[in-house]
Amino acid sequence: MKKSFAYAAIGMAVLGLMADPGLAQTAAPAAEAAAAPEAPVYALAADTAYIFNTLLFLLGGFLVMWMAAGFAMLEAGLVRSKNVSMQCLKNIALYSIAGILFWLTGYNLMYTGVDGGFMGSFGPYSFDPVGGDALSVGYSTASDWFFQMVFVATAASIVSGTLAERIKLWPFLLFTVVLTGLLYPIAGSWQWGKGWLSVMGFSDFAGSTLVHSVGGWAALAGALVLGARKGKYTSSGQVIPMPGSSIPLATLGTFILWLGWFGFNGASQLAMGTIGDVTDISRIFANTNMAAAGGVVAAMILTQILYKKVDVTMALNGALAGLVSITAEPLNPTVAQAVFIGAVGGALVVFVVPLLDKLKIDDVVGAIPVHLVCGIWGTLIVPLSNDGTSYGVQLIGIAAYGAFIFVTSLVLWMILKATVGIRVSPEEEALGLDKVEIGVEAYPEFGQGSQRL
Amino acid sequence: MKKSFAYAAIGMAVLGLMADPGLAQTAAPAAEAAAAPEAPVYALAADTAYIFNTLLFLLGGFLVMWMAAGFAMLEAGLVRSKNVSMQCLKNIALYSIAGILFWLTGYNLMYTGVDGGFMGSFGPYSFDPVGGDALSVGYSTASDWFFQMVFVATAASIVSGTLAERIKLWPFLLFTVVLTGLLYPIAGSWQWGKGWLSVMGFSDFAGSTLVHSVGGWAALAGALVLGARKGKYTSSGQVIPMPGSSIPLATLGTFILWLGWFGFNGASQLAMGTIGDVTDISRIFANTNMAAAGGVVAAMILTQILYKKVDVTMALNGALAGLVSITAEPLNPTVAQAVFIGAVGGALVVFVVPLLDKLKIDDVVGAIPVHLVCGIWGTLIVPLSNDGTSYGVQLIGIAAYGAFIFVTSLVLWMILKATVGIRVSPEEEALGLDKVEIGVEAYPEFGQGSQRL
Amino acid sequence: MKKSFAYAAIGMAVLGLMADPGLAQTAAPAAEAAAAPEAPVYALAADTAYIFNTLLFLLGGFLVMWMAAGFAMLEAGLVRSKNVSMQCLKNIALYSIAGILFWLTGYNLMYTGVDGGFMGSFGPYSFDPVGGDALSVGYSTASDWFFQMVFVATAASIVSGTLAERIKLWPFLLFTVVLTGLLYPIAGSWQWGKGWLSVMGFSDFAGSTLVHSVGGWAALAGALVLGARKGKYTSSGQVIPMPGSSIPLATLGTFILWLGWFGFNGASQLAMGTIGDVTDISRIFANTNMAAAGGVVAAMILTQILYKKVDVTMALNGALAGLVSITAEPLNPTVAQAVFIGAVGGALVVFVVPLLDKLKIDDVVGAIPVHLVCGIWGTLIVPLSNDGTSYGVQLIGIAAYGAFIFVTSLVLWMILKATVGIRVSPEEEALGLDKVEIGVEAYPEFGQGSQRL
Repeated sequence: MKKSFAYAAIGMAVLGLMADPGLAQTAAPAAEAAAAPEAPVYALAADTAYIFNTLLFLLGGFLVMWMAAGFAMLEAGLVRSKNVSMQCLKNIALYSIAGILFWLTGYNLMYTGVDGGFMGSFGPYSFDPVGGDALSVGYSTASDWFFQMVFVATAASIVSGTLAERIKLWPFLLFTVVLTGLLYPIAGSWQWGKGWLSVMGFSDFAGSTLVHSVGGWAALAGALVLGARKGKYTSSGQVIPMPGSSIPLATLGTFILWLGWFGFNGASQLAMGTIGDVTDISRIFANTNMAAAGGVVAAMILTQILYKKVDVTMALNGALAGLVSITAEPLNPTVAQAVFIGAVGGALVVFVVPLLDKLKIDDVVGAIPVHLVCGIWGTLIVPLSNDGTSYGVQLIGIAAYGAFIFVTSLVLWMILKATVGIRVSPEEEALGLDKVEIGVEAYPEFGQGSQRL
Repeated sequence: MKKSFAYAAIGMAVLGLMADPGLAQTAAPAAEAAAAPEAPVYALAADTAYIFNTLLFLLGGFLVMWMAAGFAMLEAGLVRSKNVSMQCLKNIALYSIAGILFWLTGYNLMYTGVDGGFMGSFGPYSFDPVGGDALSVGYSTASDWFFQMVFVATAASIVSGTLAERIKLWPFLLFTVVLTGLLYPIAGSWQWGKGWLSVMGFSDFAGSTLVHSVGGWAALAGALVLGARKGKYTSSGQVIPMPGSSIPLATLGTFILWLGWFGFNGASQLAMGTIGDVTDISRIFANTNMAAAGGVVAAMILTQILYKKVDVTMALNGALAGLVSITAEPLNPTVAQAVFIGAVGGALVVFVVPLLDKLKIDDVVGAIPVHLVCGIWGTLIVPLSNDGTSYGVQLIGIAAYGAFIFVTSLVLWMILKATVGIRVSPEEEALGLDKVEIGVEAYPEFGQGSQRL
Repeated sequence: MKKSFAYAAIGMAVLGLMADPGLAQTAAPAAEAAAAPEAPVYALAADTAYIFNTLLFLLGGFLVMWMAAGFAMLEAGLVRSKNVSMQCLKNIALYSIAGILFWLTGYNLMYTGVDGGFMGSFGPYSFDPVGGDALSVGYSTASDWFFQMVFVATAASIVSGTLAERIKLWPFLLFTVVLTGLLYPIAGSWQWGKGWLSVMGFSDFAGSTLVHSVGGWAALAGALVLGARKGKYTSSGQVIPMPGSSIPLATLGTFILWLGWFGFNGASQLAMGTIGDVTDISRIFANTNMAAAGGVVAAMILTQILYKKVDVTMALNGALAGLVSITAEPLNPTVAQAVFIGAVGGALVVFVVPLLDKLKIDDVVGAIPVHLVCGIWGTLIVPLSNDGTSYGVQLIGIAAYGAFIFVTSLVLWMILKATVGIRVSPEEEALGLDKVEIGVEAYPEFGQGSQRL
């Protein structure tokens, strides 16, 4: 009902004029204003703010939804061609599951009736009715739900990359169900649901800890229980490089994530109805971009110095490291501070990636250095630019999330391992998950796939 | 003229203040408001609504334009590497042609002077003048044209995928000219142009029938006239799999389409100037996402049960199936209904893909199950959540579009076959369209292309 | 601080109500309006315009930022697989450097205190404070900075493509530092900074000359100093084709650039707070799209006539040619004029690409025909639709930018060549830059990379 719908809308507005003089003024046909220029009809402040606030959630929401494609491309590019279809499938599956679970249990667990406590209430979430005009919260509830939902998917995506190339599909998806339906929302309620941590004064603007380190802790627990890929670490302590199948796809994924991050951080301002809010969103856009730039440059210079060559995957992870690092506080830093925070993040990745290999923790795409380590760094450094916060409380928050997510994830991974099993057989791992679990190879005419022809 | 232009704008606003007190109030420099706080200048309701409505068309327009890239990547990933350049070319070409034709004849045929009839008027469309301030329709005519135009391109993209790997370039583009310049707009006028079907009470919010099944019917007619790819179906009734060249590109295309669908369905609300409208847009975003999620999960579970493996291409098509299914009514369903509608769509694809192979209808990318079958399903199920509609009228609409588009397309394909010919020779088909018709191979250093080296 | 932040915002609004009755009216909680319907609170015109203007910069900014991914994919697809990682790295690196330099020196050089002269002032740029409400310029300074910054990155991306496959990484990045920190902003100040050319009446709406030909001149100077790829031109005057590694990636890049161009041209309107402005933005969207469509169709028809086959890379460059051509004046042309301007651009590319080969100027991706030649064409043709301009002044502007950027770039390239050296050795060039300078191959399991296995 396109055109006709528009006319219906005008009709409804005219009726609305009698029913509610306030509301209808916003929708009043221009003809009226023209007919009576001496009595112009003005826009209601609350209505205009409501539309801007809701629009912010929708814009931020579709930008963060797009990050699901970014993770899919990043991971598809960084795994070997025999496991690419599996990463593609896992990413579209986890995004779908995250949406369903965050509707069934997640949203209310995270946001409804937390009141300084440790979790909200159970049960599915429902939105404003069609044509709803409940101005009470200042935005559409469906737009808020959509925006919060895509954040859950981001946390789940982080886990997918670390455990690539050896984990079974369905056990991974079972973990995703619990992570997105229970663990993430319960932990999230402590801060964004106005739970105990927010009462203490913990600060995490857009989720360096609540989203990125939560995903990172779950990934770390999984990596420990799952073990490294066959042949990654030799008995003699050597680390065998297993280069990704497509650098351009990994680059595309990084650019997609960078783009999506403007919605991730910018729309976390949660309001666009005042000039102060939109000015803050603009600062956030600029700072977010500069932190990523700092991460890229730091990673490039460091790898040039350390390895005499610039490692493109380090540069890509440097961008993501900068983005994760600025996410806890993208508003208050000066540009110089933003570049610094991002650059330290980029440097952390360069040093932590080999460190994990030393510890024989096999993180296929580097998600732990990027999302966990930089998530901690970004959360710790908030007081540098935000006077209302303290290093002590930031540490408490970081520790609380680490303890809860790492322990619950570890237990869950061990239960899955002991019951359904989480790892494919060595033969299947050698063949590749695409042949074994998906039955559709990523590049049947070339790459590993072509060996079949 | 960047900065200077901004100053000019302020200047014009000051002049406008004298010319038209009403309009200029919106543009009044803040200095003024500050100088006289006791007499603040307020925003006109009609102007604010006009800006929000136009912005919605621009946002929705660029998101749906992006779907052209989604179809290109989806099709490039699902054809064999020897035909990838052709799919890339066809998609950028058809998007370009759709724009030119929808300007030359399409828009006016679809929207001008239909008045309950079967088509509008002929002739190119022209927009509001520069700086135009015609408030009569409540939005900029160019923004509306842009938004409607990208829908036409979507319908044409659907045809491209089904007929891949054996159709000649120019005959396909000739069909695209007629489809986008005549068939789609005439059929569209029946409903969105306020023609006879809209008078009957037919309902298709964003185009499950008007866009997706129209593309699907045209594709089905083409597949019947064109015939299957050589070797696809053996005389013994076997179906030979011809796996696509790149699952990550197909996955990227699916994510692009999913993202673009928020504009496709959300901006089909056609207005964002009231809190009721923006609240509805938010519901549409959430429902659209949940239907796609339902389609993915349904396709995954079904293929696991039926084939003991999850088929990633079925999961991708499941997402698209869910999106097409919810497109006829993305506003009224509850979240649960949206998941259900999408899940049924995902299931339909899993069953219809092999059915088409049984009928030896060679649909390279599965566009017929996704866009035609799910387009019908989505349109049929509208009355489940929309009391203002009836199953009977929905059936009449589905039948009317099917009859008109299928018959006219069939005739057109047969004329093209009898005159210029629509199919390459068996030798050319074996060589691949990239070598034969484009002269640029998609992957000259690997894939089929590397055989040349 | 998500939910809690929202509540804080409402709190601040209430406080603001006492501090500044004007501002707070926009943020006034709806409850108030409901409580006193007989005294509704209206939105301030200046505040609403400020939010719309800032939102336009943010939307345009993220769309143009996305063009960085477009250049990365276009170049990754058009170089041989042994140099793909390098193009990916160069593009994410130059985007990062452009942001840092445009903050350190670029913005103020281009926009601060030019006053009809030849350049602005030195020094880093700083934004409005947190929660800033300085209405003086009518938009957030950070949003404007972000939007202008992504334009600089675009100019730098153009150089990257032309010089691909033989230039050293760090010298290229050194050039990027000077281009984005000095050359581009100084030249830009002449027009967009209200310098001497804007005083003369030169017109370049969104940067056919200021962005695209500036990048093109720098690329041409680089190509002359750097020389052609080994084996590209034989002593007998033959031109050896060196086909790109991935047409789908080049196609994706083209679609990304097309999408980003709506922000590039549309947001160059620099204001969205009046119906006149948003109507103009809509015209710009439509004209931008039609010029690209004209470029595609012209390139396809011409290559079909000249070569009996449609060259997909020419069709892709035809789209970009149309986009560059309309960028100098996307607002005033009629749709027919926009198609014509774009079609001529597409034709220019088809003729100039072989011409450059005759001159043995090796432009790997065709950036000089697209960005320099069409940038000149688009700037020259402005008076066709814009009465306020003259062909003479347009020529002066084109010549001024050409002289300044070409000469300074030529000198800079020669200095770099004489000092650090800008070209890899013939052996390194044969091996590919990925192995030599990056150490990470783009496709280790196939393509050139697989030779190593």
